[in-house]
Amino acid sequence: MIYLDYTATTPVDDEILDTYIKSTKTFFANSSSIHMLGQRSNHMIEVCSQTIFDCLDIKNHNIIYTTNATEANNIGILGYCNKYHGQGKKIITTKIEHASVFNVFKSLENDFDVCYLDINQNGLVDLDKLEKEMDKNVVLISIMWTNNIIGTIQNVKEIINIVKRYKTAKLHVDCVQGICKVKPDFDFNDIDMFTISSHKIYGPKGIAALLVKRSIELNPIIYGSNAQFGLKPGTMDVALISAFAKAIKKYTVLIDKNREYVKRLWLRLYEGLKNNKKIVINTPLDNISYYIMNISIPGVKGETTIHKLENYEIYISTGSACSSKIEKPEKTVLALTKSNDLALSAVRISLSFLTKDEEIDEFIKVMELI
Amino acid sequence: MIYLDYTATTPVDDEILDTYIKSTKTFFANSSSIHMLGQRSNHMIEVCSQTIFDCLDIKNHNIIYTTNATEANNIGILGYCNKYHGQGKKIITTKIEHASVFNVFKSLENDFDVCYLDINQNGLVDLDKLEKEMDKNVVLISIMWTNNIIGTIQNVKEIINIVKRYKTAKLHVDCVQGICKVKPDFDFNDIDMFTISSHKIYGPKGIAALLVKRSIELNPIIYGSNAQFGLKPGTMDVALISAFAKAIKKYTVLIDKNREYVKRLWLRLYEGLKNNKKIVINTPLDNISYYIMNISIPGVKGETTIHKLENYEIYISTGSACSSKIEKPEKTVLALTKSNDLALSAVRISLSFLTKDEEIDEFIKVMELI
Repeated sequence: MIYLDYTATTPVDDEILDTYIKSTKTFFANSSSIHMLGQRSNHMIEVCSQTIFDCLDIKNHNIIYTTNATEANNIGILGYCNKYHGQGKKIITTKIEHASVFNVFKSLENDFDVCYLDINQNGLVDLDKLEKEMDKNVVLISIMWTNNIIGTIQNVKEIINIVKRYKTAKLHVDCVQGICKVKPDFDFNDIDMFTISSHKIYGPKGIAALLVKRSIELNPIIYGSNAQFGLKPGTMDVALISAFAKAIKKYTVLIDKNREYVKRLWLRLYEGLKNNKKIVINTPLDNISYYIMNISIPGVKGETTIHKLENYEIYISTGSACSSKIEKPEKTVLALTKSNDLALSAVRISLSFLTKDEEIDEFIKVMELI
Repeated sequence: MIYLDYTATTPVDDEILDTYIKSTKTFFANSSSIHMLGQRSNHMIEVCSQTIFDCLDIKNHNIIYTTNATEANNIGILGYCNKYHGQGKKIITTKIEHASVFNVFKSLENDFDVCYLDINQNGLVDLDKLEKEMDKNVVLISIMWTNNIIGTIQNVKEIINIVKRYKTAKLHVDCVQGICKVKPDFDFNDIDMFTISSHKIYGPKGIAALLVKRSIELNPIIYGSNAQFGLKPGTMDVALISAFAKAIKKYTVLIDKNREYVKRLWLRLYEGLKNNKKIVINTPLDNISYYIMNISIPGVKGETTIHKLENYEIYISTGSACSSKIEKPEKTVLALTKSNDLALSAVRISLSFLTKDEEIDEFIKVMELI
């Protein structure tokens, strides 16, 4: 079996699973219980949160643990925008966001002036256009760091500088595909809200988080106890949180090493595919994470390619797993290439430090055959 | 250590943890991925859902997996009520609901005529009063099955009959403390929406579910992919779902046996405490689950009792863990006893098939001492 869909999800690291198991057994008490057992669970959550803060070198954020990145993006974006309900404010995002940001902005179109920024041929948001769209009326900008479909890395540092000039505007960044994979050239302390997820970095599914600057108040979108600042109420799972913190701790220090490794694989893949006349390589050569390569086989639906590859026990995807059941042009590839054909025939290969040279070579070979 | 806070959460059953571990390793692929590995994960979720449907003997519900019962209650109640936003409709609940129902109703007070039903001295909702409040304007009623603070079991069968007479009214039931503990005398198929949770029945935390009749459409409260009918989008965790299904399967067949066991313990506890002159036993003698006994020590704050007992390594709680950090009269005990003093001094002892006679005896002895 050749699994090349690590962007959709990663297998759980044995050491991280072990952390989950130990934490389940040791900290089973409800972290909201006021007795000592409950307080020990609560303390363990605080220790995990501090580990995450330390790994990201952040000092002024709160962390809100959620089921998945989708929920984290919703709690941040809706929680902030709901404060401006009915005030005719403006919000800005891009045409290449994950469904959990894009569809939240769609849901706000009745209440807000919503701007969806285009990307250029390098897969990057045009910062001049962002500047042009900015004004005093803008309350929120959401732009992802590392794109989940084509792998391009946005210039978050410069985006921070632009947004900073507008006091009322807050910046949300979906960091799910960047965290523990890409070394940031910006300071997380400068981002008002950002989202991270466990199951993209060899942690368990069922846990992600929104980091929010302490100075920012969000309106709750669900109601219950006052746990997690009342923004994600109900019982928390110390075991999932422990495993998530362990994943971040373990893979933060491996960013450079793993990136070197996958960059070599990516280039090997590129060399092997570039002469295949059936294939168009959509992912640009620069400003990319090297964990993702998006390609198209014009005239062949992405889904068809996926199923052909299954016969060789090779597993890749058409795009975001979250949107994979919808048969329509992949919106990020469309925004990049302006070609419906390329967007309908796009597939994504995604790599890991677990990927082997032989797997890349086998994939290249099979792509010649199918 | 004597843990008597099983209502707040239960330790994870080793066999269920084992299911989680195996499922994590076997079904790591994203269940939304269209390739075969993803579809195997998706199929496993369907198998688990069918297991849950079979255990509850339900035929016409969809299941939506959530982080916890709080989220499930919100998705159901807000999801249904949001359809009637601004139409001056009426919704009904009780004064003894969990914060995740009660505070959702509170949040809807601006948009709806909200009725909070009282309970009688037996801890039961007065069904005549419910009948009086019902009219064509009522769109939703939410009444919990087994109370999490005093252990009383509401007459869900009769509530179903009352609500059935009004076509526009839907019934939501919080079944978290009833499921796998109390044998229902009603048919789950007759309930429009209900909530169940894993970590109250020896499953892992981080997973709960809303069951919704297929004929009912809910408005989403968060946005993203179309996973889970678009109501709880984003990546699902097959491992947590497998463990949850395992918990329901294992403990459904043990309902009678375990209830017999805890009933004996409850009566032993009752006999041991009833002559302790410091103590008032709040939980009534009839229509109760026998998993919960609520008592008060008038004049002594509940929190003080908790901390005194900690010195003997005995762990109980003041009430719902979800509300335990708020120092105010416990609202369910207040509704039952109409006494502020009893509500401020209330503590909850909760039992399990894991509880031993000696633990009950030790607890009784220590309650004489403190």
